[in-house]
Amino acid sequence: MTSTTPGDDAPDDAEQDVGLLSPVRAGSPAEYATGDRAVLQALLDAEAALTRAQSTLGLAPKEAGRAVTEAACADRFDVRSLALRARSGGNPVIPLVADLTAVVAELAPDEAEFVHRGATSQDILDTALMLVAARTLDLITADLADTAASLAGLAAAHRDTPMPGRTLTQHAVPTTFGLKAAGWRALVLDAHDRLTRVRASLPAQLGGAAGTLAAFHAYAPDAEGDAGLELTAAYAGELRLAAPDLPWHALRTPIADLAGALAFTAGALGKIAADVLVLSRTEIAEVAEAAGGASSAMPHKSNPVRATLVASAARQVPALSAILLGSLTAEDERSAGPWHAEWQPLREALRLTGGAAHTAAELCAGLRILPDRMRAHLDLTGGRMLSERLNAELAPLIGRAAAKQLLAEASRRAAGHGTDLADALRQDPRVTEALGDGRLRELTDPLGYLGSAAALTDRALERHPRQDTP
Amino acid sequence: MTSTTPGDDAPDDAEQDVGLLSPVRAGSPAEYATGDRAVLQALLDAEAALTRAQSTLGLAPKEAGRAVTEAACADRFDVRSLALRARSGGNPVIPLVADLTAVVAELAPDEAEFVHRGATSQDILDTALMLVAARTLDLITADLADTAASLAGLAAAHRDTPMPGRTLTQHAVPTTFGLKAAGWRALVLDAHDRLTRVRASLPAQLGGAAGTLAAFHAYAPDAEGDAGLELTAAYAGELRLAAPDLPWHALRTPIADLAGALAFTAGALGKIAADVLVLSRTEIAEVAEAAGGASSAMPHKSNPVRATLVASAARQVPALSAILLGSLTAEDERSAGPWHAEWQPLREALRLTGGAAHTAAELCAGLRILPDRMRAHLDLTGGRMLSERLNAELAPLIGRAAAKQLLAEASRRAAGHGTDLADALRQDPRVTEALGDGRLRELTDPLGYLGSAAALTDRALERHPRQDTP
Amino acid sequence: MTSTTPGDDAPDDAEQDVGLLSPVRAGSPAEYATGDRAVLQALLDAEAALTRAQSTLGLAPKEAGRAVTEAACADRFDVRSLALRARSGGNPVIPLVADLTAVVAELAPDEAEFVHRGATSQDILDTALMLVAARTLDLITADLADTAASLAGLAAAHRDTPMPGRTLTQHAVPTTFGLKAAGWRALVLDAHDRLTRVRASLPAQLGGAAGTLAAFHAYAPDAEGDAGLELTAAYAGELRLAAPDLPWHALRTPIADLAGALAFTAGALGKIAADVLVLSRTEIAEVAEAAGGASSAMPHKSNPVRATLVASAARQVPALSAILLGSLTAEDERSAGPWHAEWQPLREALRLTGGAAHTAAELCAGLRILPDRMRAHLDLTGGRMLSERLNAELAPLIGRAAAKQLLAEASRRAAGHGTDLADALRQDPRVTEALGDGRLRELTDPLGYLGSAAALTDRALERHPRQDTP
Amino acid sequence: MTSTTPGDDAPDDAEQDVGLLSPVRAGSPAEYATGDRAVLQALLDAEAALTRAQSTLGLAPKEAGRAVTEAACADRFDVRSLALRARSGGNPVIPLVADLTAVVAELAPDEAEFVHRGATSQDILDTALMLVAARTLDLITADLADTAASLAGLAAAHRDTPMPGRTLTQHAVPTTFGLKAAGWRALVLDAHDRLTRVRASLPAQLGGAAGTLAAFHAYAPDAEGDAGLELTAAYAGELRLAAPDLPWHALRTPIADLAGALAFTAGALGKIAADVLVLSRTEIAEVAEAAGGASSAMPHKSNPVRATLVASAARQVPALSAILLGSLTAEDERSAGPWHAEWQPLREALRLTGGAAHTAAELCAGLRILPDRMRAHLDLTGGRMLSERLNAELAPLIGRAAAKQLLAEASRRAAGHGTDLADALRQDPRVTEALGDGRLRELTDPLGYLGSAAALTDRALERHPRQDTP
Repeated sequence: MTSTTPGDDAPDDAEQDVGLLSPVRAGSPAEYATGDRAVLQALLDAEAALTRAQSTLGLAPKEAGRAVTEAACADRFDVRSLALRARSGGNPVIPLVADLTAVVAELAPDEAEFVHRGATSQDILDTALMLVAARTLDLITADLADTAASLAGLAAAHRDTPMPGRTLTQHAVPTTFGLKAAGWRALVLDAHDRLTRVRASLPAQLGGAAGTLAAFHAYAPDAEGDAGLELTAAYAGELRLAAPDLPWHALRTPIADLAGALAFTAGALGKIAADVLVLSRTEIAEVAEAAGGASSAMPHKSNPVRATLVASAARQVPALSAILLGSLTAEDERSAGPWHAEWQPLREALRLTGGAAHTAAELCAGLRILPDRMRAHLDLTGGRMLSERLNAELAPLIGRAAAKQLLAEASRRAAGHGTDLADALRQDPRVTEALGDGRLRELTDPLGYLGSAAALTDRALERHPRQDTP
Repeated sequence: MTSTTPGDDAPDDAEQDVGLLSPVRAGSPAEYATGDRAVLQALLDAEAALTRAQSTLGLAPKEAGRAVTEAACADRFDVRSLALRARSGGNPVIPLVADLTAVVAELAPDEAEFVHRGATSQDILDTALMLVAARTLDLITADLADTAASLAGLAAAHRDTPMPGRTLTQHAVPTTFGLKAAGWRALVLDAHDRLTRVRASLPAQLGGAAGTLAAFHAYAPDAEGDAGLELTAAYAGELRLAAPDLPWHALRTPIADLAGALAFTAGALGKIAADVLVLSRTEIAEVAEAAGGASSAMPHKSNPVRATLVASAARQVPALSAILLGSLTAEDERSAGPWHAEWQPLREALRLTGGAAHTAAELCAGLRILPDRMRAHLDLTGGRMLSERLNAELAPLIGRAAAKQLLAEASRRAAGHGTDLADALRQDPRVTEALGDGRLRELTDPLGYLGSAAALTDRALERHPRQDTP
Repeated sequence: MTSTTPGDDAPDDAEQDVGLLSPVRAGSPAEYATGDRAVLQALLDAEAALTRAQSTLGLAPKEAGRAVTEAACADRFDVRSLALRARSGGNPVIPLVADLTAVVAELAPDEAEFVHRGATSQDILDTALMLVAARTLDLITADLADTAASLAGLAAAHRDTPMPGRTLTQHAVPTTFGLKAAGWRALVLDAHDRLTRVRASLPAQLGGAAGTLAAFHAYAPDAEGDAGLELTAAYAGELRLAAPDLPWHALRTPIADLAGALAFTAGALGKIAADVLVLSRTEIAEVAEAAGGASSAMPHKSNPVRATLVASAARQVPALSAILLGSLTAEDERSAGPWHAEWQPLREALRLTGGAAHTAAELCAGLRILPDRMRAHLDLTGGRMLSERLNAELAPLIGRAAAKQLLAEASRRAAGHGTDLADALRQDPRVTEALGDGRLRELTDPLGYLGSAAALTDRALERHPRQDTP
Repeated sequence: MTSTTPGDDAPDDAEQDVGLLSPVRAGSPAEYATGDRAVLQALLDAEAALTRAQSTLGLAPKEAGRAVTEAACADRFDVRSLALRARSGGNPVIPLVADLTAVVAELAPDEAEFVHRGATSQDILDTALMLVAARTLDLITADLADTAASLAGLAAAHRDTPMPGRTLTQHAVPTTFGLKAAGWRALVLDAHDRLTRVRASLPAQLGGAAGTLAAFHAYAPDAEGDAGLELTAAYAGELRLAAPDLPWHALRTPIADLAGALAFTAGALGKIAADVLVLSRTEIAEVAEAAGGASSAMPHKSNPVRATLVASAARQVPALSAILLGSLTAEDERSAGPWHAEWQPLREALRLTGGAAHTAAELCAGLRILPDRMRAHLDLTGGRMLSERLNAELAPLIGRAAAKQLLAEASRRAAGHGTDLADALRQDPRVTEALGDGRLRELTDPLGYLGSAAALTDRALERHPRQDTP
């Protein structure tokens, strides 16, 4: 047995997470947008924007903004070295400022002093995570829009495809696959709207050491307006993020909003996955994934793998979201622990939700629907699924309590003998007196008891994704 | 030792939870609005509204709506009996329909058959929980508005009250108590806005057995329009809840939205509590609760009890919220487990958040601010808290790296000897050459380094709670 | 619409939770053992034990222990009043000490001063919750033992009952219901063992104001030994709880251990429920609850209600457990918030797990097994479920890769045409050359491919619940 | 602004997580032991052990075990490629088996067919995660042992160092730093014991396709004993893991046990961090980290960075643990979602707890204690901290209620005037009559009111880490 001992002889890449244990997001757009390299680039984007904003306002030379922007390219930096050196100060911005200053000093020695001027680490890290979130949300909403389009197609195509409605695992009354797909789509649009709203509100962070922006005043002793407020606006503008009313170092609304919207999205997709998993069961097989997953042991297997992966994400994001919501209780002007506990769960929530959105888009684009099996299953209960309808018909004729009891007993009898409910009912003179045989046959036809299914489907398909401009 | 054995001789009230273990909500308005009796009344309100809506649309006699409404008074029912009988069908609506039918049968025998006609249990229970949520959110937002008003007063009064800004537990740079209070208020308004938005969107639930509204068609064979859609609109109108696009038996957006907004609110209040707990510490004592809590052992104790209780709620709601978000993954047309897992956590989240809001309103209304102690603490670090400002002044004069190193060393020396930073700096000729003594004194005056604190406070106070009409 | 406004006219019981929203525990033994009345009695038991222990050690008159014990009866106290008055000091012990002192003062005026002498509120509340936990765990382990016995019966009876083994929702290879039941039982025994171990370690709490036991020294100036340590041992002895090495006011191991064991138990029962829900589906129907749940709308419905209720608990307890584990991070000698956040989630975790255990005992005692349907389902895939076995036979004969490919293709063909895998295989000369027809029939007989199922079942049934004496 | 668009031109390493957002574990031994490369090696170790065990039992040629073992070296495989290809079957074992088979086919063509023979993916992945867990727990317990040793040193050295005991953030009564350090150590030993116990029970996984071990029978048609059970034992022996009673594909006790023990450990270390953060505050400064963390903005800052990082882990692990506990509810013989949701949270929980343990070991090894400041703070309340003691003395002399009231009033008066409690008491004739001035001075000496602090410390130090042999 080869052991993995860490130490001087550990291979260079021993610590990496490249997605081996998280197939739901491996290779997805969101994974690339949330990797450490993307975070590093976002940190650099924030630093460059800050210096550019100072240049624009005349608080630094024009050349400073240009030099820092040129230097702010992730390729120039060693992300693992930054990760390791982050430990001594507790965050990766401190070593990054040192390295960025060195790069700028090489490119344009006079401008090095303008790197990170007046900022605190949290200004840069919070802003970078908002950039990463913004970029990832754009990818997620695109996948959700694709998913909604696929589902609109399925709902329209199967507007009148009847299938068993199932409640508490049992056949209840008939429904349509169109209504089911329209419901899935409604959840996807709900997720899309929530993410779009949050996306539009993601703010830049700027407060300086303790949220007063005082250092920016110190570096602009001759400013006419409020240098802090003006710089905040210019900086946010550079980044195309919202300008915050207040520095939010310890007022974590943006993180909490992301937490809620991401958990919602993962859960909404999890609902679709849960239904696909049920409907794919060997005994049910009313839907199937385009190409099922293989097994390492069983040549015949075709597993609902995409639904499984989406389900795996839906089980994780709510708990990550609870960590993020818990970090609202951040003490002081900048906190010791709550803030640091946000970074990895936020990235993981973005990455998992993004992977789930990408996987769900594949799932819905290729989902195969088997209307014949749906139709066949409507007869599985021998008409007992229509007991509610029979009840509605019989109650006015023989009394409500009598009708319910009669139907419950006939249902039990029919289920016990494996016969149709109609046959069991025909043995009861109260029924035959009240209903002719033709009416009884009509009442036990599942296709005649679909209620508002088509109307609901049509109405739901009129809704479209909300557009917000950030 | 007296043992508590359950059994036939168990006292009638042995199972009750009356708040003994949850002082944060004991006696609060939200507690009364979420107790089992309030839930029962909401269940009855939903049943009555359904029959009234059918009466209004001509699907039931006018008298039916009146009779069910008269019967639908919680006093007529035994809530514990309903709770016990809920086990056999898995929810309390089944026994409630039986009992309500019996009451109506006594009041108006002909109308009994119109009780719950066409509905499924989940229609009633979901709607009732939306009513309970709506009523509780109204109470919570009222308390948040009071809290915001108190905090606006504190922020305005202490707009220029300097105090130490603390980051990672250490004095960082000066700030003002006004800015801190304005930040607390911003969070409270964020919570207010989120709850108000969710409140306005809370929908009634109506779908019938499996979400097709089919039974309502069966009971209205001669309807011209779509009986299901029309009834949904009328029913929601009776309840002053939103009318849903689709039945949401297994599309749990409203629950997830509540989960997110409640966890946000509890966390926002938790931030205030966390700060009050820090600032109340014996060594800090910059704020104090109006009347501190007593101790069972120590006559001298005056504990920050309200902040403690708010903190206790903030630690619980995010996890309850994770349960609710997890229930988005509800399989089928109505689920077996995910739905049932929502009820108690939703009530508990409402009740804890409501208790926290009420307690926070008390806390903020009475919070005592001690500006003298704040001022005194600004001198605790002997001017080291101004190192950032000195750095800004010295960097252009002696170089950035040199300035930072010089200040770090002087800070260490001053901290070690317990002297002022200014004294330590005066021993360095680079400093005395660059800065005159007057300037050095000026630069180490904490009152001169408040940056945008007042401007940020003023701007934040211009914001007002958002008004949404449901 | 009747509104529920709190206020002076609120009914007396408006705030009560009597289980309406938590049918999984309504009426269960655990519910009675965890109600506020049971908590109150446990608080009184703790107070009485403390005074008795002081009497025993000569630190208080004999009569004091007797008087407090006599007074310490829940019937004498108003639990709602205590809950309301708990707010001012942050916990219910402070008003309880006042009320208990008053009762003792009436019974034996001289002994009133010995009530709660030297203790802090947390000593009493922590001890009371350990008593409540101990009493509830005894009820839970009894229900688990019953469940394990039922499952042993099922496993033995169905040791050789074949059924489809399902993986990723698809038929995989045959298994037996005996092995499945044995697996359920193993989880139940794992839960039983973990609860038993935690039960045996539950400690009394005694530390005085800040964990030094100093007040007990102050009241025993002439003691020879260490009055604090001796009193702790005597007090724990009175309560039949473990004597702690250290006061654990802010060292929350016992709470964390309970959290882990309760979440484990709820989850273990949740596994059984998840399987029952699958196997009860209309299309599968291999098991059925003894008496299914009724529906308010559909007379024919027979829902797997007990499994649903157990599942509802399994979805809640892990999150409650996360709150409790989070409270390990309690600052100082006694914390402001983390401690207060434990009480209600601990009670709720006990109550939900206890309700789940009671419901699962009912479920397993009455579960109906339908071997004929299990047998019939083994043929659903037309022998494709034996592809692994055919692979094992063919690989040595025609090569591993060829065998796997041949079987995958034949499986697809058979599934597509709805024919048996054996028929599809017979069309391939490589197969007919390698295997005679009799061997092929043998290899596709599901009853011949059960591996170690029976042996595993037998071995698992040899295990018995672990006995720990507290 | 440089954007990070994923796509064909994405850099090779764009998706990597190398610890940038998780400084608590960056560079720690646990990080190396849990990286994807370590997981890959563990997967290979499991495959090799399985073939070796088959060789040993005569179910495969001796050469097969040797060849697979030689091939099973992570360096031969491309972990990112495996991660990407894992998507099609839902787990990384399927592509790994293909690649491993290819490597073996090159080394020893005849043995390739023995790779993974009879196993299912989950056998290998579960076993690998148990190996990763075992290796990581060994690293964590070593760090905990170091921490316990440091804390034993601190507790012994400061057995009699008095400091304020703090409850609900307020000075309560005196305690000692020795007792505090002994309490921290008790938690660390509790964590050590729980991890050691779990470590010893970690089982190998072997069940084949659906937990019956049937394929192993198919490949051993002539075996005398039960080939499945014998192979399980041999396989576990090769891996030095426990041999399970039953395949645990859907009986997730080992995962739940890890979840509980890891969350406990992170929380126990979180308690130490919480205390260090309080005691490091600028106003308190009773302890300090060996080398504080720097700030990017403020040259004077020395932040409690290690405590902050430990706190960040303690906030995350309970929620990850809740995901893992939730996965107990795994349906069927192998589940679709619950299992897949375990992998990443388990790795993250191991990695965070391991990072926290390593960081806490550094923290405790270097923690500086400042007894002079502790002593000075004992006088901060002017003797009010002794009110409990005075109460014990006065109650018997002037009555309990009178004493408590007198002391509460004198405390308020003293606090208001900033005078000593003794001075305030001297103005009350009841006190001066009851107590001489010498006695009053004695009673207000904090050093005379330490109760059992030293005795408790001594007793706690007698405990040693438990040793379990796996």
